[in-house]
Amino acid sequence: MAGNPRAELVVVADPFAEAAGALAERYKCDPSTDCEAAIDREDVDAIIIGTPTDTHLDYLLRAVGKGKAVMCEKPVDRDIARSRAAVEEIERLSGRVMMAFNRRFDPTSREFRAAIDAGEIGEIRQVIITSRDPELPPEDYLRHSGGIFRDMVIHDFDFARFLLGEEPVEIMAMAGRLVDPGLEKIPDFDTVMVQMRTASGKQCHINCCRSAVYGYDQRFEAFGSVGMLLQDNLRPTTIRRWNSTQTDAREPLLNFFLQRYQESYQAELEHFISALEAGTAMPVTVRDGLIASWLAECAYESIRTGRAVRVQPSSRN
Amino acid sequence: MAGNPRAELVVVADPFAEAAGALAERYKCDPSTDCEAAIDREDVDAIIIGTPTDTHLDYLLRAVGKGKAVMCEKPVDRDIARSRAAVEEIERLSGRVMMAFNRRFDPTSREFRAAIDAGEIGEIRQVIITSRDPELPPEDYLRHSGGIFRDMVIHDFDFARFLLGEEPVEIMAMAGRLVDPGLEKIPDFDTVMVQMRTASGKQCHINCCRSAVYGYDQRFEAFGSVGMLLQDNLRPTTIRRWNSTQTDAREPLLNFFLQRYQESYQAELEHFISALEAGTAMPVTVRDGLIASWLAECAYESIRTGRAVRVQPSSRN
Amino acid sequence: MAGNPRAELVVVADPFAEAAGALAERYKCDPSTDCEAAIDREDVDAIIIGTPTDTHLDYLLRAVGKGKAVMCEKPVDRDIARSRAAVEEIERLSGRVMMAFNRRFDPTSREFRAAIDAGEIGEIRQVIITSRDPELPPEDYLRHSGGIFRDMVIHDFDFARFLLGEEPVEIMAMAGRLVDPGLEKIPDFDTVMVQMRTASGKQCHINCCRSAVYGYDQRFEAFGSVGMLLQDNLRPTTIRRWNSTQTDAREPLLNFFLQRYQESYQAELEHFISALEAGTAMPVTVRDGLIASWLAECAYESIRTGRAVRVQPSSRN
Amino acid sequence: MAGNPRAELVVVADPFAEAAGALAERYKCDPSTDCEAAIDREDVDAIIIGTPTDTHLDYLLRAVGKGKAVMCEKPVDRDIARSRAAVEEIERLSGRVMMAFNRRFDPTSREFRAAIDAGEIGEIRQVIITSRDPELPPEDYLRHSGGIFRDMVIHDFDFARFLLGEEPVEIMAMAGRLVDPGLEKIPDFDTVMVQMRTASGKQCHINCCRSAVYGYDQRFEAFGSVGMLLQDNLRPTTIRRWNSTQTDAREPLLNFFLQRYQESYQAELEHFISALEAGTAMPVTVRDGLIASWLAECAYESIRTGRAVRVQPSSRN
Repeated sequence: MAGNPRAELVVVADPFAEAAGALAERYKCDPSTDCEAAIDREDVDAIIIGTPTDTHLDYLLRAVGKGKAVMCEKPVDRDIARSRAAVEEIERLSGRVMMAFNRRFDPTSREFRAAIDAGEIGEIRQVIITSRDPELPPEDYLRHSGGIFRDMVIHDFDFARFLLGEEPVEIMAMAGRLVDPGLEKIPDFDTVMVQMRTASGKQCHINCCRSAVYGYDQRFEAFGSVGMLLQDNLRPTTIRRWNSTQTDAREPLLNFFLQRYQESYQAELEHFISALEAGTAMPVTVRDGLIASWLAECAYESIRTGRAVRVQPSSRN
Repeated sequence: MAGNPRAELVVVADPFAEAAGALAERYKCDPSTDCEAAIDREDVDAIIIGTPTDTHLDYLLRAVGKGKAVMCEKPVDRDIARSRAAVEEIERLSGRVMMAFNRRFDPTSREFRAAIDAGEIGEIRQVIITSRDPELPPEDYLRHSGGIFRDMVIHDFDFARFLLGEEPVEIMAMAGRLVDPGLEKIPDFDTVMVQMRTASGKQCHINCCRSAVYGYDQRFEAFGSVGMLLQDNLRPTTIRRWNSTQTDAREPLLNFFLQRYQESYQAELEHFISALEAGTAMPVTVRDGLIASWLAECAYESIRTGRAVRVQPSSRN
Repeated sequence: MAGNPRAELVVVADPFAEAAGALAERYKCDPSTDCEAAIDREDVDAIIIGTPTDTHLDYLLRAVGKGKAVMCEKPVDRDIARSRAAVEEIERLSGRVMMAFNRRFDPTSREFRAAIDAGEIGEIRQVIITSRDPELPPEDYLRHSGGIFRDMVIHDFDFARFLLGEEPVEIMAMAGRLVDPGLEKIPDFDTVMVQMRTASGKQCHINCCRSAVYGYDQRFEAFGSVGMLLQDNLRPTTIRRWNSTQTDAREPLLNFFLQRYQESYQAELEHFISALEAGTAMPVTVRDGLIASWLAECAYESIRTGRAVRVQPSSRN
Repeated sequence: MAGNPRAELVVVADPFAEAAGALAERYKCDPSTDCEAAIDREDVDAIIIGTPTDTHLDYLLRAVGKGKAVMCEKPVDRDIARSRAAVEEIERLSGRVMMAFNRRFDPTSREFRAAIDAGEIGEIRQVIITSRDPELPPEDYLRHSGGIFRDMVIHDFDFARFLLGEEPVEIMAMAGRLVDPGLEKIPDFDTVMVQMRTASGKQCHINCCRSAVYGYDQRFEAFGSVGMLLQDNLRPTTIRRWNSTQTDAREPLLNFFLQRYQESYQAELEHFISALEAGTAMPVTVRDGLIASWLAECAYESIRTGRAVRVQPSSRN
């Protein structure tokens, strides 16, 4: 944001004065330890919320109430009922809020979706999403994460909707602890599978794991009536190694989301600024955030009940 | 079989005299229109059953009753109760019957499994199986096929067991008609997804479709604690094309199972003969056939009930 | 040949009675220790010559003199002047002789050439050929091989002509001993590079080495005005391995020409038989063999003189 | 440079006042229309020369004479004798000049070289370099370029030295006009091949073309005694397309050097600054620039004479 010629960074707010000060000095803007005051400043038109999850909702509503635009990290709130109420309030106020599902702005993701829209694969039949983190996060992170479906798979739920172009109406989930059985005490899972169906019958499979020795694995496949699209992973270089035991070996994947999605974070910001400048609709909304959160809740219900869960349309309107 | 130096082809039996005669002449053996008589011949030690499904069981039991070895196409029978009874009878008689799940003998499949056994990927966490036919079979074929799970996915159920090295204990299935909605009148499905779990928690996803414009798509992925193995498809040549709109483009896949699994059919036969010569256990048994059939039944139950179905251990013992 | 339904194997001739006998018994034909008598047999229409190089020419001329068709391993003779005289004699007699440059019949090679003929890459500008053997042959083999250009690169010279569709008119060669400096005592080289130009200006590079730890490396690239074609290598399976140090690693290549070109040997035989049945021209002629041999001679001249050598048209007519 | 926290951009000099002014305003520094005055400024420690080729030498010598460090675009001068004299003068003065061969700083190139240094492929036997531009430059550019070897292949000569780790001692070149025969009137070539040998016998092939419909093609292969390394190209996304006529098709390559080598330009600058800060040797010197220019001269001599040209050691010392 600081380097973007279309925006001016006015203030960095952080309850920790030292952190706020360091960033403010580096990026030549005001520091603040009072997030609410920062939101209220008259010279602030738009806010980026990257605070702990349990503060999202208050800051969101405050900013919207003051007529400020917002880009907010997912989720709206850890509690689905509170999230729904907030989203409805934001919509009632015609608040301009963008949900920061950065993967939608990755160059490959956009080209992938554009190819689908251009009819390259005809009618989609099946979408397959593989999403594996390189390493299990620390236990402390997991305790506050809300669980793998709300913290990690939520990105894949959003991406599935982005690719399918339709709402899932049915979901079946399966979860285990194959990386660390000790997660039972949190409790959380580390390895899961989901299958979903849309109203028109399109099928989607998601597999996730919190740990993969070869790096951050993000693959997507969309299979349709006249073709298929695959997205491969990114690697640091294009070297291929040949020796007496193997050929054409490539490097391990980029290690984690900050490297893998560096370009998408930048593009996400550009889209936010463009929507502000043009006064057009946000490319991802809090409603999108709410639906992804709701799919996570449905996944937990499927695991509890051992049933395919109907994603009630009423819950999304 | 005719060209195998370790075996002698004695008789080809087919109720259609002309078909039996043509093959017998080509391969220099006796023709017969009486399958039972052919089974009974004293100079016949082993039988290959490639007849219509509803005849498998009788021929199987007759051959086993006469002490003959058998290699039989799947399934044992379309009726699961009759299959179970027959398998128990065959086991009681210590019948030597090999179930013709040819994919297990594909060179890539065997190397794939050997790599797992050698610990290359550590503990398996997830297995992903993609299995798509190039074209929807004729309606007449579909009417007699028993349905996509019993006719097509059964191969993937068997292959999943082969890769997992454990029995699935829970299964969730989802099915649709995305290629041809008209299949409702049969009724059958053409596009399905399955997810399964083993007792130790390993997860497996299968996706199948009766039609894929780019050819016969057979991909397997085994993801484990220290690595991952992928099996790619086979293509007629290794050419890669570059032009102004694309780079590195490869050819469509080999069109169907007869081309794709040509080597595995030959290897399957070699394993059958080797087991006969050595007097060792059959590499795939009628019990394997029964379990794959039973998984298909469980998939149908999951679709009917919208539930995760427990694959009862009792049903497999 | 023995298994080909369009041909009948009549006699196997080998000065070593035991070898001839073993093959004759296995393939149910007559054994002979007298190659010339075998050629002369009235019931023999066509001969395959796979004998030591210094016998090729006599058997060739004898067979052609008797009006028999021949498929002959390269080269016609180790001596270029004798080769030229023999080729002229065979042409004068309208002898039907196919030179066994098997690579032209590889499925990928044929599809590669068909794509060029179909105009997929427009006008060819550059052809790049990589050709590496897995291991240095034994010294005894090398002593009788005639040298790397006549023994190994000759295949690439022929293949270059096949891909270019034009005759090379200029050649520059470079040769070294990077695998085994001890080859100087033979003398022979083990690592070479060649660049050639055709009359219309098309350029071709060949690199060869007698040893490659990763297997038998045979890659071709044709770069043209509207596209490029690449031929990749063959591997035993399609497995790709991922672990903490690498991703997408494939297996070492098929180890040597017998495995790599198994299909092309079979296809070569089919083309020979088809040409005999149809009475059409041989798909590869002794003239093709002579030109490839001549390019090898020019390569040696380039190395001796340090000059680009003109491949005199007169030398090829 | 303007955004680099380790450097301060003081002045932008350009004889065109408007251009200098625009850049100076954008990057908050002084504009100047007098390059010599800019070099002479007391507050200037280092200079980047990106001016027309015929001004390089004067600015270089002036800056070095004033004790300023320089990063200079290739070549030192279009005239090889003048280049040599200047390089000797710069070396006599212990001038700190970095030659801007940016490819050496590409992340893949550095990893490639590190793998060689780590012994991954043992002793190098052959290096293969493919280097193709997407489109023929305008005629006006070509008229002032000095010819394809001095303008384009010079990068590959430098990169060959970087990979080989040894000096080429012999070179054979071949050149044609396959993209545009009209280049004869300049005169220039558009399609060339080179093969070189080092003192220890390592071989190197380079192929170049001024036009490739599929984009900017930059591939490197290093083949050694215990392995091989390949560098693949970069593409805008990782999408792979499958349809009824092809599978696994990737996008055209990044279109030209500014996109392809974006990272290497940034890394090059970092290395220059690091060398200045640490007072260490420049990672690429004017001597490197001179040798690459000399190889281009030798290539022209090879074309003129049709001979393998000895790259005289004396000419490089």
